[in-house]
Amino acid sequence: MALGRVSLVGAGPGDPELWTLRALRRVEEADLVLYDALVDAEALRRLTRAQCFCVGKRAGRASVKQDTINRLMIRAARQGKRVVRLKGGDPFVFGRGAEEMLVLAQAGIAVDVVPGVTTAVAAPEAAGIPVTHRNMASGFLVLTGQTGEGLNDALSAVRPGGVTVVVMMGLGTRDAIAREFMMHGWPAHTPAAIICGASTREEWVWTGTLAELGRPEPPDGVAGVIVLGEVVSIGEAKAAATARPAVADEVRYGRS
Amino acid sequence: MALGRVSLVGAGPGDPELWTLRALRRVEEADLVLYDALVDAEALRRLTRAQCFCVGKRAGRASVKQDTINRLMIRAARQGKRVVRLKGGDPFVFGRGAEEMLVLAQAGIAVDVVPGVTTAVAAPEAAGIPVTHRNMASGFLVLTGQTGEGLNDALSAVRPGGVTVVVMMGLGTRDAIAREFMMHGWPAHTPAAIICGASTREEWVWTGTLAELGRPEPPDGVAGVIVLGEVVSIGEAKAAATARPAVADEVRYGRS
Repeated sequence: MALGRVSLVGAGPGDPELWTLRALRRVEEADLVLYDALVDAEALRRLTRAQCFCVGKRAGRASVKQDTINRLMIRAARQGKRVVRLKGGDPFVFGRGAEEMLVLAQAGIAVDVVPGVTTAVAAPEAAGIPVTHRNMASGFLVLTGQTGEGLNDALSAVRPGGVTVVVMMGLGTRDAIAREFMMHGWPAHTPAAIICGASTREEWVWTGTLAELGRPEPPDGVAGVIVLGEVVSIGEAKAAATARPAVADEVRYGRS
Repeated sequence: MALGRVSLVGAGPGDPELWTLRALRRVEEADLVLYDALVDAEALRRLTRAQCFCVGKRAGRASVKQDTINRLMIRAARQGKRVVRLKGGDPFVFGRGAEEMLVLAQAGIAVDVVPGVTTAVAAPEAAGIPVTHRNMASGFLVLTGQTGEGLNDALSAVRPGGVTVVVMMGLGTRDAIAREFMMHGWPAHTPAAIICGASTREEWVWTGTLAELGRPEPPDGVAGVIVLGEVVSIGEAKAAATARPAVADEVRYGRS
């Protein structure tokens, strides 16, 4: 019997052109692909002859249970199949990828992890916002806005200012998140941005302040991130420069 | 005259298979590539007929000054050339990419940013270490270990525990970094890892504790990251499971 294996593969923020070359190769060679709701399913089916199943939440249907996903992967690998578990962004950033890796390894299944472009960095980047910038942000903190202890724990761990904060999966609770940050001492006027559907046709960007975070109406059904910090101004400066006609700065930059 | 443009492109942690499809396309179509020392130059030259210049530090030679890089990009774009500025990891994570983007946009040059797989996530991932994990790390903080105010600012901003910390560009000063963390209240027994040359043939991994960070001798001339937090144990559990013979767990997982 051929030896099966499972590859946990990051699909990046949305646009299939932001897959890695290895991600493409794994998908092309796969017999079975289990993909999350954030993955571009049309592009996926064009690229592979593998059986493809969506195991994420979509169109109001619940996602497949984690135990079931694990069982499916193990059974297929034991049948000699090359399985790809395709996840939005990077598999190890809020993707339960490491849990799946451990379950597979402990079941004796060969497993490899193919990193992806993380949405935590690429979504702000699509809006011209760097998560780090000299004399502005000497680091960045990535959190999840999902309910539970996580946000509070992480917010207690970080003091306002100094580093950029990226909140993933927090659009639905952005009002509560804004209140939580302000309760932890973040100034109401902290620059804020929301970026939805980064790198896709649905891309949508808003900038404002922490206190205003509840006001905008991001499009429904598109994943997004919240960015907090001075670096938001870089995206605004880029947008302003691009909107302006080109400046004649031949003298300044020379021409040789 | 043809319209030139500049693409700021992330090359990922090292292995050219971890380039994105768009990165490959930009490089294939380029007339001029200015690349950093961390980029695989051999792979680059196989993939493009563009003129390629290393502008990063290497073999003891200083890197080209930022002003000179900016001038080169602007001049080439004004001559109608398609310029790629190729950077290790992601262009907006400690890469001065946003500074270059602003200079170009303000000079009226068309500029796009192609995100890359960031080494901050992919290097730990190569060692089986997730930057987030349920009930263990509800977020992650990425810092630079380079000299200056940055590290101290960022360390003052975050309290020990709760989130994973990834320190980039800190190998050379890891003794001082360990002391700095402990002075800021991080326990000496905090799990720690060093990952060098992730995804390349030079990949090298060490795990231990914060207090022991100065002991190992990472290979010279290879970039690396330091990881601090409980998630280091996941990489160790993965390594242990992989070393063990497969467990017969047919009963537990069923077979249908």
